[in-house]
Amino acid sequence: MLISELSAASGVSTHLIKFYLREGLLRQGHLTSRTRAEYSDDHLRELVLIRALVDLRGLPVQAVGEILAALRLPATNFHYLLGYLVGSLDEPAPPAEPSEPTGADDEDSTAARRTLDEAVAAMGWHVHPGTKAMRSAEASLDALRRYGIPLDVTDLLQYAQAADTIAQADFAHLSTLASRQEMFEHALIRTFLLDTTVLAMRRLAQEHLSGQHFSGEDTDPAGTPQP
Amino acid sequence: MLISELSAASGVSTHLIKFYLREGLLRQGHLTSRTRAEYSDDHLRELVLIRALVDLRGLPVQAVGEILAALRLPATNFHYLLGYLVGSLDEPAPPAEPSEPTGADDEDSTAARRTLDEAVAAMGWHVHPGTKAMRSAEASLDALRRYGIPLDVTDLLQYAQAADTIAQADFAHLSTLASRQEMFEHALIRTFLLDTTVLAMRRLAQEHLSGQHFSGEDTDPAGTPQP
Repeated sequence: MLISELSAASGVSTHLIKFYLREGLLRQGHLTSRTRAEYSDDHLRELVLIRALVDLRGLPVQAVGEILAALRLPATNFHYLLGYLVGSLDEPAPPAEPSEPTGADDEDSTAARRTLDEAVAAMGWHVHPGTKAMRSAEASLDALRRYGIPLDVTDLLQYAQAADTIAQADFAHLSTLASRQEMFEHALIRTFLLDTTVLAMRRLAQEHLSGQHFSGEDTDPAGTPQP
Repeated sequence: MLISELSAASGVSTHLIKFYLREGLLRQGHLTSRTRAEYSDDHLRELVLIRALVDLRGLPVQAVGEILAALRLPATNFHYLLGYLVGSLDEPAPPAEPSEPTGADDEDSTAARRTLDEAVAAMGWHVHPGTKAMRSAEASLDALRRYGIPLDVTDLLQYAQAADTIAQADFAHLSTLASRQEMFEHALIRTFLLDTTVLAMRRLAQEHLSGQHFSGEDTDPAGTPQP
């Protein structure tokens, strides 16, 4: 298809498609003359992916470029490549000011890490101890603890069980796919796009539960902001 | 405690504490003289919360101020206030360029919304149909569909079940708390901070599963990036 048809099919302006081409995000089409290029369904798929990663995840152009470059590699060493890619793109939110370490924090940091390690062991998970995900989990548990809401292993295991259910769902269809390249694409796309879905579904479940528990108990609409 | 002790206990510099005071994020301490103020454990708790929301969630100062202001309201109409607060602070990632709607998208958008509505109905969830969470879930499902990885209701229900497990864990301790104000605080803090934990635990579960399925099958370390 021509660039105009690619634009119509994807909902992305020709101007933006040309930007992605210049940036090397989108692969060049097949030149049929000096001024015309043909694009395939693969280009369309990549373009839809680029928009999803930018729109839904707010990823910067460079990060999106890295994902696409990795997708085009031969699908060797699936596990390590997927782990590398996901890990390199999971940046923790940058702090406005660097936190200053205090002696009082150390004991809590150790307690948060211990709780996490115990939960990982109880789940029988074989995972690298130094990933961003481990640090991110530890940091959030540490913050809860310092705020006075420590999670113990039993609490955390409920979240781990839910995570296991999610990961099983994430991987459920991979074995039905025809090629390793396709398996890699699916795993990567679902990992990134479904983060949004997972958090949204959590909100819906919370809204339902909160309504069940609390909405009948208060009758003070005055001054209540509209939902 | 004095501001210097508040700084030592929280790990936040005096300079930054004064910034938060000027911005109205942190409540003023109790003035004991023209130049000295006393701070309580409640101030320490708020300061830890501010850092967590900035560090872990990257929330802007205004958003953090809204959360703290809501926490100080009398805990009436718990359900609506919690929903309003969580909903108002769940901003979707801003797109770099606005997406252009095409006729071809409408059918897919409807399909994504139908799948979502069916899953919500199957879970028996009583939720408002127009929340950010519903739009966010729909947008992510729509993107997957347009990329050629549509989720059907059976798939989505696995994520919904996991979300239900998570929400049950989120609310498990609320009934054990002494005051409604405390219940509100806990629900709000856990909602925000555990988003990070939920996504991190998903990564760990995925890493484990991926290792189980794939790591023994490839033996090409050459050119593989280090994890």
